[in-house]
Order: sequence, then structure tokens, then C-alpha cells
Amino acid sequence: MSRSIRLAVIPGDGIGQEVVAEGLKVLGAALPSGTKVETTEYDLGARRWHATGETLPDSVLEELKGHDAILLGAVGDPSVPSGVLERGLLLKLRFAFDHHVNLRPGKLFPGVKSPLAGEPQIDFVVVREGTEGPYVGNGGTLRAGTPHEVATEVSLNTAFGIERVVRDAYRRAAARPRKKLTLVHKNNVLVHAGHLWSSIFARVGQEFPEVTTDYLHVDAATIFFVTQPERFDVIVTDNLFGDILTDLAAAVTGGIGLAASGNINPSGDFPSMFEPVHGSAPDIAGQGKADPTATVLSVAMLLEHLGLAEEAARIEAAVAADLAERIDGPVRSTSQIGDALAARVAG
Amino acid sequence: MSRSIRLAVIPGDGIGQEVVAEGLKVLGAALPSGTKVETTEYDLGARRWHATGETLPDSVLEELKGHDAILLGAVGDPSVPSGVLERGLLLKLRFAFDHHVNLRPGKLFPGVKSPLAGEPQIDFVVVREGTEGPYVGNGGTLRAGTPHEVATEVSLNTAFGIERVVRDAYRRAAARPRKKLTLVHKNNVLVHAGHLWSSIFARVGQEFPEVTTDYLHVDAATIFFVTQPERFDVIVTDNLFGDILTDLAAAVTGGIGLAASGNINPSGDFPSMFEPVHGSAPDIAGQGKADPTATVLSVAMLLEHLGLAEEAARIEAAVAADLAERIDGPVRSTSQIGDALAARVAG
Ligand SMILES: CC(C)[C@H](C(=O)O)[C@@H](O)C(=O)O
Ligand SMILES: CC(C)[C@H](C(=O)O)[C@@H](O)C(=O)O
Repeated sequence: MSRSIRLAVIPGDGIGQEVVAEGLKVLGAALPSGTKVETTEYDLGARRWHATGETLPDSVLEELKGHDAILLGAVGDPSVPSGVLERGLLLKLRFAFDHHVNLRPGKLFPGVKSPLAGEPQIDFVVVREGTEGPYVGNGGTLRAGTPHEVATEVSLNTAFGIERVVRDAYRRAAARPRKKLTLVHKNNVLVHAGHLWSSIFARVGQEFPEVTTDYLHVDAATIFFVTQPERFDVIVTDNLFGDILTDLAAAVTGGIGLAASGNINPSGDFPSMFEPVHGSAPDIAGQGKADPTATVLSVAMLLEHLGLAEEAARIEAAVAADLAERIDGPVRSTSQIGDALAARVAG
Repeated sequence: MSRSIRLAVIPGDGIGQEVVAEGLKVLGAALPSGTKVETTEYDLGARRWHATGETLPDSVLEELKGHDAILLGAVGDPSVPSGVLERGLLLKLRFAFDHHVNLRPGKLFPGVKSPLAGEPQIDFVVVREGTEGPYVGNGGTLRAGTPHEVATEVSLNTAFGIERVVRDAYRRAAARPRKKLTLVHKNNVLVHAGHLWSSIFARVGQEFPEVTTDYLHVDAATIFFVTQPERFDVIVTDNLFGDILTDLAAAVTGGIGLAASGNINPSGDFPSMFEPVHGSAPDIAGQGKADPTATVLSVAMLLEHLGLAEEAARIEAAVAADLAERIDGPVRSTSQIGDALAARVAG
């Protein structure tokens, strides 16, 4: 049997190029015989915007639809006004392809140094809603540039959008040994959105009597991330709170060099997109200093999403083994880490 | 010369009662001779709401205006629907009295154990905007209880509101040895509000050439809170981001048992309000287990605000000395800690 994965690759800006190259290297090493990858690379990001003013042309969006998945490096550059590429490219993709399950594991691998004291046990996954909340781009400005300027940002939350991501999170919790799901919101202040989240969370929970549930305000959740991270198993939360919590999760599990993510459309109507949580890090770009591990772990999530769970597990195991040896090892370049991971996966 | 401070006291719910008693004890010990405190206690919170359905009657709001300051313990109880007391009492006070400078120091006192590894140096202050942003209560619900329900939350941001808090933060930064101010927002996603904050931040900065400035997205800021907290001096941020960051700040500086706050109206048109960052902690209420230190430090902020800087410094020094000895000391009750602090302040 032969199978071919049509993969769209968007290296993006800064270290995006470098880490994606290593991700593809490891992907190649992981594939079962008889499975091929056909990659199409898309030149999107700061360079294209400077050259053409385009962030994501409709024609490219159309072409991307013909792929099984997207691998993205990082997007953004100080030379581009803040928001242009984020809203015009990254978020446009998440919204256009209805990536409502933004999946972000927070796992401290053995041997990895956490900034937290002691030896915390951290192994949770954040299910961040990806298509609603304060991210909808529904804001505006009145009397711009005057002393009377007013700017708004509207958080939009729908029963439809919340229910599907909450159910997805319950399913994931039910499939894990600890079967615990924590809702994070701020329902004592954002009472309308918060009430909608809480009531749907309670109702859908009736379908999953085996799952233990918990609720935390987002401010309290950040406390537990640093004082008691082991209390978390699966977390479901709003788009903005998820953004904040997953950077904090990355920090306590050894840094954003290791944090992977999947922007998933579980229906399969559109391709899902996998990307490291980190940004384009222009300060270290082009120097071979970037850690490609987050991208490699994102590739594992991509394979898992495409039904290649065994291959995904092999990559995770290779990463775990590599990380366990890093502490005493020499500093390696981006491609040396990629080579080492590919070799472990292949062999 | 004799002076009298008219102090309104709102112990509130749970441990609020217990910690406020100790705060007043230390306040009494700190006052210079010739200065008296006249306290008026207001019974507000869960009990009153259950008994009368009132959160903050207009008559009480009127009476509170006649005071020089307010000391608040904590508000909230699981028996009251989420949001009722928060919006109807705590936030109502902050908004009615235009507490636009929500001041929250993040300081790791010598001898206090941080959940962070190593011995981080943490000494910053967060200036959280207190009267705008997503806290304005400008949200709504459409088609409630149906599968088509939509809930909104509107973040309102005005040039007027941002400029005054940004200028306040610059002044504080200019008065500190390191003279550094970091703006935290999410201007790559919340582009309208973010742009307003960033442009005002840049413009007001021209009045303070001696202050070094920096900008961080809120998600990145949480990373630095745990990996590099020493990089912060003064932080200015939006109401919601400030809420999240200050709980995290409390966590990394030894816990919310130590985190003080002031809800300040610098104009003096209305009384400012001082309160510990922690909540009512119903699980430990009534057992003498609560740490009153955050309230005592809030009392110090209160005195500083009323121009009694020396007395405030004496309380801070007493807390520092007490904390330095705690590690090896026995577990003490709420009132034992209060007694010890009062004794140090007095003597
Ligand atoms: C770059 C930015 C738009 C993005 C977000 O806020 O979602 C990033 O922080 C992330 O978490 O993927
Ligand atoms: C209780 C709640 C309304 C409040 C807030 O969100 O401001 C609290 O978390 C705080 O930080 O003082």
C-alpha cells in the first residue's frame, strides 16, 4: 500500500525557516515505508509583505485547502507593524480553516530543567479555543489620534463554538489516565461570556460522568501553574486565556524551545496546522541557534492527527531520549539537534 | 498637632474579617502620636446579600465618600453566584471611586521561599489600570439558553483613561533607582486597544527621557515572570492583563498571603481603597490560619497614600524582619502574626 501526504509548508520569518527544515528532516525519517510526503512551500511572511504588500492572498488560501496538513514555522518581524502578519496571516489561517481546537501540551520531559524549584511533575494539555473570544478582530477606534479617542475590542462567544471545543476537551480528558478537566475563565468579571462557558461546561460534562471537573479563574490558574502544576490534566479555555496560559506552560516546562502546538479542525473539512508556540525570534535568526525541538514535536502532533500514531510516538520518544542527554552534552546547532533526532527516529 | 484619619473598613467575607482585624492592630501601632483613626465598619458581602439582597446600597456608597481611605478584606463566597459580589461590590467601588491606579508591588522579601529555582531578585511594581478595559461590564447575551446563544464582552479603552495611568506609571518609574517602565499588552492581536496603549505610551514617554522603556506581549511577559523576573521594575498594563500578571507576581514572590494592593484615585476626589490581592478563602476561614501579612502591607500602602511615609516604611521593615525569621519559626495563627508585627512596629 502506498500513501502520500500532501503537506503545505510555511516556514515564515526569522528562525521559522531553520526550525521547519529540521522538522521536515525528522518527518522524513519517521515515515513508514510506502508513505511519501509531497511538500509545497509557501513564501508568506515579512519578506513577501515587504515585496508585495500581501499577507495571505486568496489564491494561496485556496491552494492550501488542497493539502492534508500545514506545517508553519513562525510569523512576524519588527520591520512589519504589529498585527499585520499576526492578523493577516496566522490568525487568518486559523479562522479561515476553522481551527477551533488549539492543542498545546505542557509536559516537562525527564532531564529538562524547569525554572520551578523542586522536581515538579508536569504533564497536562491545554485545549485552547481557536476561533472566538477576543481574537475575532471585532474592534474599532473612534476619534483616532485625538485626546478623545476610544478603542474597543469585542469578545464574541457562541454556544456552538464553546460546545464543540468543550466536548473535544472532555473526550481528550476521558482518554487520559487521570480523566480530569479544568475549565479556566474569569466568570466573576466577564459574567456573560463566563456564564456561557460555565453552563456549557456543566451540561456537556453530563455526557462524561467518568471525568472529574474543576473550575479556576484565569488569575488563580497562573498561580497553580507555578505552585502546583501537577494538579492539571486537561485544561479547556478561551482563546486569549489559552494564549497566556500556554506561554506560561511552556516556560515552566523548559521554555518555548520545546512547546508544540496543533491548530486542529477535527472535522477534517480544512487542513489542520501545526506550529511551535515560539515566535520568529529575529534576534537569533540565521545563526543556527534556534532549538528545533518544538517544531519536531509539532510534526509528531501532525502525524498523530493524520492517523500515524506509532510514528508520532517514535518522534516523541526520540525527543525524550535526546532531552534526557542534553544537560551534560555540548551546545548543538539547530541542524545538529535535527540530525540527532532524525537519527534516533530512523534507527 | 492632632490629626484624625477617617477610615472605612469593609472586612467582607471569609478570611477577610480575620486579616482586617490584624491590619487594624498594626495600623494602631504604627500611628504617630497625635494621630487617631476613626474607623467605621461596613457590613458588606455575602452575609448582607443573603439577608437583604443588597451588594452596595447607594446610601453606603454616599457614606463611604466621607472617608479618607477604605480598608477592604476580601469579598466573595461560593454560596453567592459568581460575579454578584465582584461586580456589585468590589468592582462597583473601584469604578464609582475612579480607582484608576491599581498598584500592586511584586517583591520577594529576603528569606521568603519562591517557587522559582535559584534565588531570584524580584522587586517590581505593577500599575494596573483599574477602570477600563474588559472590566467595564459592557457585555451581553443573545438567545440565552438556546443552542444559538451568543455572549459578548466589550473592552473599552479611552485615551483619557490610558494617558492618566501611563503618566502615573512613568512618574513612579522615574522615582525609582532603575527607572525602567515596561508596557504589557497584546497589540499584535487586540490591535485597536493595543495601538492606543502603545501610541500613548510612546508619546507620554517623551516627558520622561530618563525612563527606559520596553514593550512585551502579555503571553511573553508571563514567561519572563518565571524565567527572568529581575528584568522588571515598573510595569503598566490593562485591567485584565494586570489582574492575571499580579496573581502570577504574587505566586513567584511567595504567595498571595503576602501580596498587597492599592486601588488609588490620585486626585483625592474619592477615597482610595487598600486590600490584599487574595480572595476570601472560605476553605480556611474562621480557623486562624490566614496570613494577615498582605493586609498589613496594604495598610502600609494606605499610610503612604495618606502622606505617612515614615510609618509605612516602619510597617514594611517590620514585615521584612518578621518574614526573614519565619522559615525556621513555628507555624503561627493569624493573630499571632498580627501581634508580632504590631509589636515590632510599636517597639
Ligand atoms: C502571534 C500571535 C498572534 C499568537 C497568538 O496570540 O495566538 C501566538 O502568541 C500564539 O500563541 O500562537
Ligand atoms: C475578585 C476579582 C473581581 C478581582 C479582579 O479580577 O480584579 C481580583 O481578582 C483582584 O485581582 O482584585
